Amino acid sequence: MGSRDFEENPLRGFVIPIGGAEERLNDPVILARFVEICGNEKARIAIIPTASQLDETGPNYEKVFKDLGAGEAISLPINTREEAQQESYLETLKSCNGIFITGGNQLRLSTILGGTPIAQAIRRLNAAGVHLAGTSAGAAIIPEHMIAGGSKGALPTQQGVTFAPGLGLLNKVIIDQHFSQRNRLGRLLSAVSYNPFASGLGICEDTAAFIGPNNELEVIGNGSITVIDPSGLEHSSMAEAERGDSLTLLGIKMHILSEGASYNIETREAKPKPN
Amino acid sequence: MGSRDFEENPLRGFVIPIGGAEERLNDPVILARFVEICGNEKARIAIIPTASQLDETGPNYEKVFKDLGAGEAISLPINTREEAQQESYLETLKSCNGIFITGGNQLRLSTILGGTPIAQAIRRLNAAGVHLAGTSAGAAIIPEHMIAGGSKGALPTQQGVTFAPGLGLLNKVIIDQHFSQRNRLGRLLSAVSYNPFASGLGICEDTAAFIGPNNELEVIGNGSITVIDPSGLEHSSMAEAERGDSLTLLGIKMHILSEGASYNIETREAKPKPN
Repeated sequence: MGSRDFEENPLRGFVIPIGGAEERLNDPVILARFVEICGNEKARIAIIPTASQLDETGPNYEKVFKDLGAGEAISLPINTREEAQQESYLETLKSCNGIFITGGNQLRLSTILGGTPIAQAIRRLNAAGVHLAGTSAGAAIIPEHMIAGGSKGALPTQQGVTFAPGLGLLNKVIIDQHFSQRNRLGRLLSAVSYNPFASGLGICEDTAAFIGPNNELEVIGNGSITVIDPSGLEHSSMAEAERGDSLTLLGIKMHILSEGASYNIETREAKPKPN
Repeated sequence: MGSRDFEENPLRGFVIPIGGAEERLNDPVILARFVEICGNEKARIAIIPTASQLDETGPNYEKVFKDLGAGEAISLPINTREEAQQESYLETLKSCNGIFITGGNQLRLSTILGGTPIAQAIRRLNAAGVHLAGTSAGAAIIPEHMIAGGSKGALPTQQGVTFAPGLGLLNKVIIDQHFSQRNRLGRLLSAVSYNPFASGLGICEDTAAFIGPNNELEVIGNGSITVIDPSGLEHSSMAEAERGDSLTLLGIKMHILSEGASYNIETREAKPKPN
């Protein structure tokens, strides 16, 4: 497969945030589905292990994807902004039909990849039909507005979340991961209440949102995704609150989605698993 | 004040669940407001310390209420079902215009008071205008359906909550306490999704819901109350789920209320603190 012809495929690729700690060995349904979407033996997957500081992260995923039947899986060990300009990496990236961003520290992703040709290529390739999955930090970086950190707990607070600019593949959602495992509802509520234009997706470990080109999100995996839809927000005290104050937020809609359930990130309609 | 004339006051008294750990010494706004509602120097408050196994709990609250200006505060040290039949306690209870149920173990409350003349008198007195506040276990016991226990965490599960019959002062709400402090959203979601007829109130520590005879709940205190309104529930997988399964719940409405905000437990309308 050569570099992609953007004209050939006007639909964007799947965007697949994963909540971290996805199964890689025994029946890895999420990674297997990703390989399948990329075409199994026709899959050519670029792995971006930049968030991780472990040298083996990239090679490990190469093996996992090949074991799952992917035609090729190539890790691009980008660890500096200089490496993110490297022509050979860019060429490899452009020759792939799937991109996988590993976990680690999402601020490494934004500081090393932000504003580089690699980041630009990822956006363009996905718009042209290349599928992209990211786990943990690799999921957080997907939207326009990335959660960089925040407080633990069930309640929103005035300084409950910090943002950084993300890759910008989606702009109608804000993504949090390790969601129930790390007790992150409060920071997701904080995030969406700063500006209620986006839906919040709180993704549990070993759980993924397969968001198709039609903006329909389907849940795959063992956990659930908590969707916070603030579009009906009737009142928020966020603007007047001071640090440490309890907040008032009225009219939030919440869906909890488990495997097979779906949510349209454009129309905000949720559906159960079809019978 | 003699025993109450039920005909004289057709409005029920305030019902005031408190999330536990309410301030008792420095500016105890919740307990002070309770004393005020009971008429300050005209207040005659019966304290039911049955949930607690500490002998000093009752006398401690006697002192707190008197320090706050209550005319009288009398602890009724009911520790057995036999004592819950004792005529002198019943007479004292009937002579009061306020009842306070302390924290401890809510199963002590339901097993010791359930079905006794004391429990019946509490219901009748409140219906006739006597105000009732309860903290922690004393809050849990207030509604028809009491949360007796459950799992920690942000997500509902199939066996995520256990119920026991409560005092039955309110039947349109289910109450959980120490809410954010003990990470109890999941069990409250489990509780309301078993049967979505009731609103769930998740009350933080040092926070109270002052529910007036008009069914309007006002928040007082330092924390917040998370209201789960399941009346618009579009789908629940609870009935088919097996133990350990992730659930799907679609169309839950959530309000987070801090001091001054209100919620009508009948109409389910939430309002911000008035300007």
